[in-house]
Amino acid sequence: MNFSSKILQDAVEALGALPGIGKKTALRLALHLECDPFEKAQKISDALIRLKTDIKRCSKCHNLSDNDICNICSQENRRKHVICVVESVRDVMAIEDTSQFSGLYHVLGGIISPLEGIGPEDLSIDLLKKRVETEKIDELVMAISPSIEGETTIYYISKIFENLDVNVSVIARGVSFGGELEYADEITLGRSIESRIPYEMKN
Amino acid sequence: MNFSSKILQDAVEALGALPGIGKKTALRLALHLECDPFEKAQKISDALIRLKTDIKRCSKCHNLSDNDICNICSQENRRKHVICVVESVRDVMAIEDTSQFSGLYHVLGGIISPLEGIGPEDLSIDLLKKRVETEKIDELVMAISPSIEGETTIYYISKIFENLDVNVSVIARGVSFGGELEYADEITLGRSIESRIPYEMKN
Repeated sequence: MNFSSKILQDAVEALGALPGIGKKTALRLALHLECDPFEKAQKISDALIRLKTDIKRCSKCHNLSDNDICNICSQENRRKHVICVVESVRDVMAIEDTSQFSGLYHVLGGIISPLEGIGPEDLSIDLLKKRVETEKIDELVMAISPSIEGETTIYYISKIFENLDVNVSVIARGVSFGGELEYADEITLGRSIESRIPYEMKN
Repeated sequence: MNFSSKILQDAVEALGALPGIGKKTALRLALHLECDPFEKAQKISDALIRLKTDIKRCSKCHNLSDNDICNICSQENRRKHVICVVESVRDVMAIEDTSQFSGLYHVLGGIISPLEGIGPEDLSIDLLKKRVETEKIDELVMAISPSIEGETTIYYISKIFENLDVNVSVIARGVSFGGELEYADEITLGRSIESRIPYEMKN
């Protein structure tokens, strides 16, 4: 690309360093911002800086938070003895969007992946152990993506809590709603048969 | 989306206001930046602000520039009597990338489009007229996208320069290199037959 302006080039390179944003997209965004009112660039600029300076990790569940305790942990009407263990902040948001879970969360910050050099010590497992020991937790719901690394992480965590008075459950894996059986992969389909549940007629 | 942090929500909303960036993409970008070193967010933030505060329009050709005169207009070895008239900065970059044009440019900043409320007075046509009158321009190469609005703009500009001593040419329209005839639309194919050129054997 031939840039007539170093400032434009810098902006394209900075935006192009974001994941999934190529050079052409970065150029489109930069030229768009150049035409837009100053406030828009200012707003994005401020928001990005605040993401790095003002945002915190909840000291209980490790979720992103504006305060020391996140707004899920501080809600009064949550079931405080059930913790849903997830990989990332995005998973918390996805589960919250379903409105099907009223307990608390614990964000691991990743899953065990020897290939990517992520070991148990890189995750917030110690914090989880402390919570289970001090907060009278009845159940840990493992809501971790089904993959080799995910299974390893679930196994590792369940091993830790083996001798503690807490039930470990795993979210159901099966055929997606709207999915077609013939296109489901063998492992998913096999599991959904294995973990079949009695049919309940609804009146 | 259920956000656990207002700061994260602000960042997602600010990024999501960019064209082509949806809420899910904005969330991915924000969470990525939150994990990345501070320098990355700082770099993007600074670059966006500079786009609005430091960048200028070249006083000759209206291209984006860091100085009063852009680095294309200030190059010594350019053919100074040929001006390529384009719609936007992106078109200048696209033509520069071909290395097939050694003249100067003129960026209109849009094309005449009554539907979008863009009239000739919104474009830098007066500046172009002044250039043609003062800079001894021999040729105006109209490199404007082929569309109804593009054709209108070309007609309007050529009408202005009708009585001045300057040739107005239009870049060739025809079948794209690598394109297949059967998939070319009728207007393009019709024009490429109409404007056929003698075949030159290359030795």
